[in-house]
Parts: sequence; structure tokens; C-alpha cells
Amino acid sequence: MSHATPDDILRLGMGFWASKTLLSAVELGVFTTLAQSPADLATLRAKLGLHERSARDFLDALVALKVLHRQEGVYRNTPEADLFLDKAKPSYVGGLLEMANSRLYGFWGSLTEALRTGELQNEAKHGSDFFGTLYAEPERLRGFLKAMSGISAGAARAIATNFPWADYKTFMDVGAAQGMVPVTLARLHPHLTGIGFDLPQVRPVFEAFVAQEGLSDRVRFHEGNFFEDDLPQADVIIMGHILHDWDLSQKKMLLRKAYDALPNGGALIVYEAIIDDERRENAFGLLMSLNMLIETTGGFDFTGADCQKWMRDAGFSSTRVEPLVGPDSMVIALKEA
Amino acid sequence: MSHATPDDILRLGMGFWASKTLLSAVELGVFTTLAQSPADLATLRAKLGLHERSARDFLDALVALKVLHRQEGVYRNTPEADLFLDKAKPSYVGGLLEMANSRLYGFWGSLTEALRTGELQNEAKHGSDFFGTLYAEPERLRGFLKAMSGISAGAARAIATNFPWADYKTFMDVGAAQGMVPVTLARLHPHLTGIGFDLPQVRPVFEAFVAQEGLSDRVRFHEGNFFEDDLPQADVIIMGHILHDWDLSQKKMLLRKAYDALPNGGALIVYEAIIDDERRENAFGLLMSLNMLIETTGGFDFTGADCQKWMRDAGFSSTRVEPLVGPDSMVIALKEA
Repeated sequence: MSHATPDDILRLGMGFWASKTLLSAVELGVFTTLAQSPADLATLRAKLGLHERSARDFLDALVALKVLHRQEGVYRNTPEADLFLDKAKPSYVGGLLEMANSRLYGFWGSLTEALRTGELQNEAKHGSDFFGTLYAEPERLRGFLKAMSGISAGAARAIATNFPWADYKTFMDVGAAQGMVPVTLARLHPHLTGIGFDLPQVRPVFEAFVAQEGLSDRVRFHEGNFFEDDLPQADVIIMGHILHDWDLSQKKMLLRKAYDALPNGGALIVYEAIIDDERRENAFGLLMSLNMLIETTGGFDFTGADCQKWMRDAGFSSTRVEPLVGPDSMVIALKEA
Repeated sequence: MSHATPDDILRLGMGFWASKTLLSAVELGVFTTLAQSPADLATLRAKLGLHERSARDFLDALVALKVLHRQEGVYRNTPEADLFLDKAKPSYVGGLLEMANSRLYGFWGSLTEALRTGELQNEAKHGSDFFGTLYAEPERLRGFLKAMSGISAGAARAIATNFPWADYKTFMDVGAAQGMVPVTLARLHPHLTGIGFDLPQVRPVFEAFVAQEGLSDRVRFHEGNFFEDDLPQADVIIMGHILHDWDLSQKKMLLRKAYDALPNGGALIVYEAIIDDERRENAFGLLMSLNMLIETTGGFDFTGADCQKWMRDAGFSSTRVEPLVGPDSMVIALKEA
């Protein structure tokens, strides 16, 4: 240990520098601007409204962070940044980063207080209601739901590929948002018809996306509130990034509602950043659970073992966990035939 | 690209979660507490004052981030965390992370504004003066200078090893802080005598550290302000993490003062997170330059090529760059014999 260095610890502790630099780049439109055309420093400074003092450091830091390339003084997006951070592309995931920048970065500044008190640290701490406001503003809601689509596209594709869809005819996605999962399933499996279930305000966004994909004949919207209403019936029910928002009794209630809405032989798929059973590998899942501490009154993330136990408590007969992409896994539960 | 995933981009963008989790752990004393004795969840919760809601997620996230180990429910520090994050050890670097947690994390929230205006975003934005206040409070100053020692210990060892000290008899460290570089040089090279140069308030902290290391006969303190005073003479002058705080004309003035204070045949060593000449590899150096944007009115980091050019402009005849540890390099300049 005499020659151990604190480099890894300092890199982790100062990691907010790199993170915030990317978040500011998204906020400033760096990637959307460069997707239109690569540009040199002077052009980019003028387009983005950057002060000369640190424009070059900022852009070169983005090169070193491997989201920009620079060749002979001309900056361009890396292929991944161009695909996922250009606002003009449907694959844009920057909406999540915009929200992280404008909301979560600041709220996480109060993490220590949250850890001491167990209390949320977002707008609700001072009496306002981010999601209530969001759902009341159609334009902002559209942006938010689109961002969620970008995030769930990879998982949607993996669910469409890795689950035995040939054995089922109908599906229902709970908290469908823009409809990325329903659209992906219907596109890859022409024998399937499906429902997106979400709050009434989501309907126009969902229906527009489904129509644009030419799937309105097989994918429809069902409006409701999953705390107040029963869930519509389907052979397979999907809940993605839903359960972690809620406390244990609410989670169990939602699983029970899914069980009740399924026919015998039906299946439930829960997918999110499922924590590994040993709780020592999936850092993102564990940090997401701390994000639920910041954002909700009782939400938390959970392991595959936790989820399977709750599923069996709800009546399901057979359960398993399968990895999807990145930190996401799906927990599958079957209702006895 | 059709199966590209946004995982790397999202991991970078959400990197402030992991970073802030470590910063809160340092603030809460997790590592100092566990250095005294490993502990299970209940014990640690009580000792640290953690709420039950997320204590386990927090500690398991630290396991997944590889700063804690957990075996049969008992948490302990990893060897690196024990060495560098236990406040009771002289190798503690947590002082920097404490400052990052209480100051920089929040100020970096205004990075976008800094990039647009070119103006600093720390306490000075609202008229207060962090360093002025710090230097007026002996206890806080002691903690800060000790933190700087932890950070520079690795570089100090590399400078002591990689430079031809046999060719020189005296050295002077500009902005010596607690004295880690002078102490390391004097300890490894018994033929050397040296000076630590810093503001008068630093004297008691410096002299106590040197005395504790038994080196008071060969290392002494010289008080001064490097903007107002000439530098004391020495065969080798060292400036670590000093130049980046200042604007270009101040940097050049400091290099000229070093040149003037050196005898013919003397050497200047500038060390910090020197940016690679291509400005595309050393992300930490580029981000440190953005930190100078946040913290100073005109400071910025620089490449080895930049520094060598300024050194030659100041009169030095021969210059070179050598890597030290992590993101740090040293730029060496010789004054013609």
C-alpha cells in the first residue's frame, strides 16, 4: 500500500465535474448544433453563445470525455452523441439529461439531508409538484415522454427479442408514456395487439407516436390511474420503471392488480434497473434507489429476489430474472395456466 | 449503429449520483468510523445518524462503487478508502472532497452561466471571499492545508524520485502549504536543504509539520506574497498547482520571478494537471481548467507546450515535460549555466 494513490477516489469524488460538463453541453445545444454541421471553435462559440474565456476548454473537455471528435480544429459529434444527443432525432435521450441538469443535479446537493431524514429533496420539499405541473403543460409533457422513450428504446428491443411472444396474443404496458414498448413489440411481432395504459393527459402524445409508426390498428390507448382503476386485461402485462416509484405496500398492490388482470397462463414483465441479489454489482440500480429517496416519499429500487418474492406473494407460480441491456433486467412472473 | 445504446452517455451524464454519494459519505464520516471498527448496518446507522429508509441502499452503493467491502453483513473500508478517507490518518485526502461537497458541487451547478459569461461562480459572485476567510481562521486553514498535502503526496514522491537532485543543493517550494513537497524531498535526499514559501498565516502549520518529520534543520519557512515580493534564491524552484490559478500575464510574471531568483544552472519545476499538447486526453486537466473558471477571475490550466513556450519567453534555455502520477506532469526548465 505504500505506493497506493488516491487517484481512483479523487476521480470518483470529482466525477460531478465531467457529469455537469455533459449536462451543460446538452443544455447549450452543443450536440444538436453539431449534428447540423461540424464547426470550428469560432463558429461554435458564436452559435452557442459561449464566452471566449473557456469555450475551448469546454469543447476540448467534451473531446476528452469522448462525446466530441476534433480534427484539424473542427468539432463534430461522436456517432453515439450524434444518435442520442441530437434533439432532432427520435433516438434523443437528452430529455433525461435536461431534467437531470435543471432539477436532479441541484436536488442531489441535499443528499446528506435526505440520508439523515429519509425525506425527499425535490420541488415537493417546498410545496410544489413537479409531475403535477408537468402533466398540466402539454408541450413540456410531450418533451418529457419523448425523453422516456429514448431511455427505454434499448430495453424495449431486448424485451421484444428475449421473451417468447409467439405464445401470446395481447399485451398491455402500464405507464406506457409515449409508447416505445408497445410500438417496438407491435413492430417486431405482427401477430400481437396491445394497449398502452397511462393517465389521460398522455393520450395525444401516445396516439400521435403510434400513428406515426403506422400501428394504430394494433396498438391503442387505455386511460386510467393505476391506483384508482383496475388494469385492462391482456395476456402479458408490462411494468417498466414503475414499481420503484412506490413504497412496499403500493408495489404489492400493483403486482396484485397485474395478477388479477391476467388470464390463467398470462405473464407479467417488470423491468427496470433491477439490483443484483447480492447488492454489490449494479451501482446504477443502487444509486437509482437513492434517486427515489430524493424524488419520492417512499419509493426504492429492489433486487430480482425481492421482486420474485413479492410476485409469488401476489399469487404468481413461476418467476425468473433475465438481463436486458445496461443496468436493466426484467423479472418475469407466470400466472398458472 | 442500429444497436448502439446510450448507456455510456447516460452513465457520464448521471455521474453526479456516484460522485455526490461519495462526497456525502465523506461528510458523514463513513470511512473514519469504519476505520475504527468494521460494523453491521444497524451499528453504522446509529453511529452515522442515517435514516432507516435508505441507509442500506447508501452503504451498498458504496460497496458497488468499490470504496466499501461487505462480508456477511459487516461493512469495512477498502484498503484505499481506509488509507485516504480516514480523517485520523496523515494520508487523508478527504479534505479536498469535503471542500468539493460543501462548495464546488453547488457552484458547478452554475457552470452553464460561467460558460456564457466567463465569470466565476463561487462565493465571490456574491461578494464574499472564501480564501480570505479561510486564511483568517487557523483551524480551518490547518484542515485545508492538510488536505492539500494528501493530494500532493504522490506527485511529491514522483518529483523526489524522477528529478536529478544529486546535481543540486537547495530548493524552494512556492506556495508550499503544509510542506509535503519540501518534507518529501528532504527526507529522500539528505544532501538537500530547502525553503517553503507561502503567506505568513501558513507558517505555524508548515513549521509544525516539518518539526514532526524531524526536518527542521534542513527545511525552513520563508513568508511572503509572490505578487508583492521577490522570491528567495534556490538552485531549484518548484511551483505546484499555482500557475493555473492566474491569468496569462500573472503566469508569465511568476515564471519571470522564478527565473530571476534562480542562479545560472538552476532549474524550475512546474507541476500540476498539465493538459496533453493535443488537448484530447487529459480530461481531468481540462475539467480542472473549467474549475478555474468557476473559482477564479482569470485562471486556466494549460498544456506542456504552452508552459514551455512561456518558460522560454521568460529566459529559460531548455525545457521538457515528464509525467508524474495520475493526471499530473511536471514541466522542467533550466536556466543556462
